Amino acid sequence: MTAKEKVSALQAAMKKQQIDAFVVYSADPHMSEYMPPEWQEREWLSGFTGSAGFVVVTQDKAGLWTDGRYFTQAPVELEGSGIALFKDGIEGTPDYMDWIISETSAGSTVAVNALATSHKEWEKLKNKLERDDRELTDFPLLDTVWSNRPAPSKNEVFVHPLALAGQSVAAKIEAIRSKMQEERVQWHVISSLDDVAWTLNLRGSDVDCNPVFLSYLLISEERSILFVDREKLNREAENLMAEARVEIKAYNDFFGFLKTIKGQSVLISPTSNESIFQALNTNNKITEKPVPGNLMKAIKNDAELRGFETVMIRDGVAMVKFLHWLTHQAGKEDLDEYGIGKRLEAFRAEGKNFVGNSFSSIVGYKGNGAIIHYSAKREGSAKVSNHGSILVDSGGQYLEGTTDITRTFPLGEVSDTFKKDATTVLKGLIQLSMAKFPKGTRGVQLDALARMPLWKEGKDFNHGTGHGVGSFMNVHEGPQSIRKDLNPVKLLPGMVVSNEPGYYVEGQYGIRHENLICVKEFKTTEWNTFYEFKTLTLCPFFKSIIIKDKLSSKEIDWLNEYHQNCKEKLSPHLDGAVKEWFLELVKPL
Amino acid sequence: MTAKEKVSALQAAMKKQQIDAFVVYSADPHMSEYMPPEWQEREWLSGFTGSAGFVVVTQDKAGLWTDGRYFTQAPVELEGSGIALFKDGIEGTPDYMDWIISETSAGSTVAVNALATSHKEWEKLKNKLERDDRELTDFPLLDTVWSNRPAPSKNEVFVHPLALAGQSVAAKIEAIRSKMQEERVQWHVISSLDDVAWTLNLRGSDVDCNPVFLSYLLISEERSILFVDREKLNREAENLMAEARVEIKAYNDFFGFLKTIKGQSVLISPTSNESIFQALNTNNKITEKPVPGNLMKAIKNDAELRGFETVMIRDGVAMVKFLHWLTHQAGKEDLDEYGIGKRLEAFRAEGKNFVGNSFSSIVGYKGNGAIIHYSAKREGSAKVSNHGSILVDSGGQYLEGTTDITRTFPLGEVSDTFKKDATTVLKGLIQLSMAKFPKGTRGVQLDALARMPLWKEGKDFNHGTGHGVGSFMNVHEGPQSIRKDLNPVKLLPGMVVSNEPGYYVEGQYGIRHENLICVKEFKTTEWNTFYEFKTLTLCPFFKSIIIKDKLSSKEIDWLNEYHQNCKEKLSPHLDGAVKEWFLELVKPL
Repeated sequence: MTAKEKVSALQAAMKKQQIDAFVVYSADPHMSEYMPPEWQEREWLSGFTGSAGFVVVTQDKAGLWTDGRYFTQAPVELEGSGIALFKDGIEGTPDYMDWIISETSAGSTVAVNALATSHKEWEKLKNKLERDDRELTDFPLLDTVWSNRPAPSKNEVFVHPLALAGQSVAAKIEAIRSKMQEERVQWHVISSLDDVAWTLNLRGSDVDCNPVFLSYLLISEERSILFVDREKLNREAENLMAEARVEIKAYNDFFGFLKTIKGQSVLISPTSNESIFQALNTNNKITEKPVPGNLMKAIKNDAELRGFETVMIRDGVAMVKFLHWLTHQAGKEDLDEYGIGKRLEAFRAEGKNFVGNSFSSIVGYKGNGAIIHYSAKREGSAKVSNHGSILVDSGGQYLEGTTDITRTFPLGEVSDTFKKDATTVLKGLIQLSMAKFPKGTRGVQLDALARMPLWKEGKDFNHGTGHGVGSFMNVHEGPQSIRKDLNPVKLLPGMVVSNEPGYYVEGQYGIRHENLICVKEFKTTEWNTFYEFKTLTLCPFFKSIIIKDKLSSKEIDWLNEYHQNCKEKLSPHLDGAVKEWFLELVKPL
Repeated sequence: MTAKEKVSALQAAMKKQQIDAFVVYSADPHMSEYMPPEWQEREWLSGFTGSAGFVVVTQDKAGLWTDGRYFTQAPVELEGSGIALFKDGIEGTPDYMDWIISETSAGSTVAVNALATSHKEWEKLKNKLERDDRELTDFPLLDTVWSNRPAPSKNEVFVHPLALAGQSVAAKIEAIRSKMQEERVQWHVISSLDDVAWTLNLRGSDVDCNPVFLSYLLISEERSILFVDREKLNREAENLMAEARVEIKAYNDFFGFLKTIKGQSVLISPTSNESIFQALNTNNKITEKPVPGNLMKAIKNDAELRGFETVMIRDGVAMVKFLHWLTHQAGKEDLDEYGIGKRLEAFRAEGKNFVGNSFSSIVGYKGNGAIIHYSAKREGSAKVSNHGSILVDSGGQYLEGTTDITRTFPLGEVSDTFKKDATTVLKGLIQLSMAKFPKGTRGVQLDALARMPLWKEGKDFNHGTGHGVGSFMNVHEGPQSIRKDLNPVKLLPGMVVSNEPGYYVEGQYGIRHENLICVKEFKTTEWNTFYEFKTLTLCPFFKSIIIKDKLSSKEIDWLNEYHQNCKEKLSPHLDGAVKEWFLELVKPL
């Protein structure tokens, strides 16, 4: 079926059920960023493969809303689907709720699949629609249209060893229970897969790149119940759960169990799916608060931080070998973006305890570098030769930690304009790297540091500056961030975030420089305790695209120190021609 | 009566009425920052004269909560009162609500005067107390204790001419009604005095320094009703109201009128007093949203911006004459802080259309400069001589606009440490002045620019970086700000804000450099429309306290350009020795 045929089939089902508009969010029951194949409803329906975006279908129209990262990619993938593109965040783009109202009449019925809709979004949509005399209803309409939906994975669930996790399951549950007491709740529902996996020191592979497994976790003052298909747990995992007194029930028994909870106070994150709220909210008192373990997970303990430092050496060595290979082979052998991504994965796989990529590598040659979350397909990705620039954003999952790095570099001649922009972006990365800030500071207060060099030239980038990164866990995690948004979460020692300013010229080139950085104590004075960032990522930048005169003396000092650190940490693991080339790269500017 | 006696009298009244805790906010029925004498309940009760802070009294204890600006001043003023000081924003200081709960038992009654309590605060307190089985009630208990409360002022209400206001009353009411339509409300209550005065192009003098008058304004789709004592309006003001079809009713008839509104949808700011909500919320549908005119007021129109530029010259001339006088007379004549403030007012009064100070001048010599909102009293203020530094923060109300400026300068020898700190603070002011930022940026994203030079030394200041400033109106206005807080209001062209980083060493010196700056368009590119700040204030900084080596070349360029601009704008209005001295001050660094 083509996207056009799928939309028609959905519209026919809508007519039958007297549904006037239907929203297909990009979501699974766990509000995961990366979803298992059976929950890729939006992608199945529309053909759009971006990580964010949702489709609204009315009886005669269809539209996809997505953000700046996909403004180049989406029109290509939507071609011929009859689905119109709505550019989120651009002036004049209607909010999808307003659009639904403008496309339907009073008394209409709007449906979503509550299992794949966050409670927060459900409430917002419901209130908005009711105000305009439209009704919101739960109807898993795609079930009737998507006949060959894949079956859920049966992949193994295994233990993340205590030596790497740094904290026992019992201690984590204890800490969560103590937060539950503060909130005066008797039960707590954890539906986000990385929070379940972190709490239980378990990992899986039910989705690409994220080492998580389909599950729910319920914690009460007395009980912990993991809802997962038991046969997926290996022996060690079974034993760990028994030892930690975690009961195991079938994944499909979750909603049945919820209905047995009555007259209790229950803590649920408002980002959990709406079906959980509907199962609980008639008999119980609901406290809507973020999952307490989410913040605990973000603050890496010493074992986890040691893990990060370990894998950064491995990852840096793989990157240097890869960069040496690519810059020397471009123009000599027949290369394309997809193959380059695979080759990078192979360099990482040479390292110890490599599990897989932490996300789909982004290899964007020339103009493709401007497609922010570009993912080159096996078939038909661009040929790469020895001219122009290339942007490579990639990361690895290792048992000890997770990496995420972007380098933009020349494969031959690049323009002065490119060099100027590359230097401006680098200034932003350095300014953020050098920041010191008092306890209590939030990411939004620091975001402008990474953007100001661009802003002074009337330029910007349409994505966040920094996201949290898990410890052998999701490469994107919360609750902290460094973005323009008013995220109230404070930056705390042990938090790992990315530092990734960029600049993109459509059709010409994309620039992004990305390191992972970690919040640590700077000093305590009579005024406050101050924090700073420690850069974790170890991989040189290319001096050949840096215009030295545009850097301040402090920025040059930072860069030289960074390269000196790369040299100390990585050169013992390099030899021959690669080492020789590397030692040139890390010489002072 | 001493503060101790007043608290005892209040506690006796509490016992009689079976009230276990009573909160005296620093508030009037209009939630004004500067209150008329009859509403200075907290100051009357405690003796603490700071602009922020509130008192909680239980049957056997009393405490005052205030913020970092007053940590030095409050203990002095509270001495002997028996009122304990709670330092807001310092770790370990209990939230006052938690403190009330810890000091009372279940079933207790807590009272406030709802007329002097914002709805927002009332709701927060009520919810918190109810959760712990305590009841919140409205009881104007101080009425029974404060026997000689002053009578309300009868000061004249007069017209702010259209040529200066730049927009007619009819046009403003029309714009507000259009926002009311968007919000689908039939009535709108305006209880904040500056919003009333702005909407009606009227001014008064019922409180110190702010040209406002006690009033409420009600706007419906058809009617506008001003509640004010009619005899205060002069002929011109009466005529303007008649022309704009604004009905006039007595100030005391306001609540009676509210009770006649039934079955309507009403827009009220959640910062309005709780009594308004209680008068309306049984019969009507309340929409809690900021006063729409508040944002309109903050975006200055061309006439208002011209007014600012005009008064900055006048204010700059007064400041230069004052600075010349003080730096030459210190050590020669007998000077004290209070007298210096009066002398500055006299220099301003030489200028055209000067109405009065826009706030109580802060003249802080040496260690007194570290008391952030220090106000030297007529009796016993510190003697000032020709050594050490002095901080002078002051402003004027002129018919054309409002000013607010701080300069910190030496009267003799100052230490190298002082110079280093003064330069660090100046770097912050300059960094913020040089910022460029895209449409949509909020103050919280820029606040760190002004603090980063201090943060890098483990230093900070305990106040906001920037507040909005009115146009012949309150010197502190919203809704925008440049602070650490997550204020969602975006910075827009025409907004005037202060840029005032500082650094304070208790007992030694205080440093603050403050200019007013205005948001204006920088450039529109393919990426966005970008804004920048135009500095409005015209008055040199003292190069003698600046360590040139600590400034970057861009910072030096900014300072030299700023001084060149001061020279061009102010020197035509100066002559003789003052001019000669001034021309030295503004020479390039």
